[in-house]
Amino acid sequence: MFAESLRKIVEEVPGGLGAVLMGYDGIAVDQHFRSVDGIDLTLVAVEYAAVLKEIKNAAQILRTGELEEVTIVTTCFNVLIRTLNDDYFVALTLEREGNTGKGRFLLLRESVPLREGLL
Amino acid sequence: MFAESLRKIVEEVPGGLGAVLMGYDGIAVDQHFRSVDGIDLTLVAVEYAAVLKEIKNAAQILRTGELEEVTIVTTCFNVLIRTLNDDYFVALTLEREGNTGKGRFLLLRESVPLREGLL
Repeated sequence: MFAESLRKIVEEVPGGLGAVLMGYDGIAVDQHFRSVDGIDLTLVAVEYAAVLKEIKNAAQILRTGELEEVTIVTTCFNVLIRTLNDDYFVALTLEREGNTGKGRFLLLRESVPLREGLL
Repeated sequence: MFAESLRKIVEEVPGGLGAVLMGYDGIAVDQHFRSVDGIDLTLVAVEYAAVLKEIKNAAQILRTGELEEVTIVTTCFNVLIRTLNDDYFVALTLEREGNTGKGRFLLLRESVPLREGLL
């Protein structure tokens, strides 16, 4: 039920490498990956799940509102994350030169069916 | 020496609320803030310093390249962060509807004099 949304997110964005629907506990519900040499993208998502949990807690403590999106840019990749509800988020990994704007749009568009599937 | 860059970043971007030059230890070197009711933006930066340190470590462990930028969107604010070197970063807090693209540009532009000042 989630596979189709994750596949669309990865394949419709230039430079899309992988998307994962994951809980803040770092456990993936579903994922769609293209193979990337030398990098385990599931592991990347697990690491960032821990970070995201901290950002979420920080936002709550600081009363800066609910966390919606996080974008991480490194010299090799862009990681875009959108929160779905209190327990789950979806993360998209792009090539460094991938289309971040299109990626954000696809995460927003597919967050609707993904969120519905989580109910 | 850093005040002028931080002032320019905050004042040249629509919706700019505050900018801080900070170490990963959460200690601010310099800052420029507009007053925002009910929110201590220095505290926000300190909280995010801890998070950023984790992202930086995760990126190194995962060999996903050096961390360059992090964008955090909550229901109330946008926080844009740019790394300067191994010890320092600059963070810009914007209103939710602020111009994120302009903010990213200003952080990139001012990262040059800020980095030089840190040498």
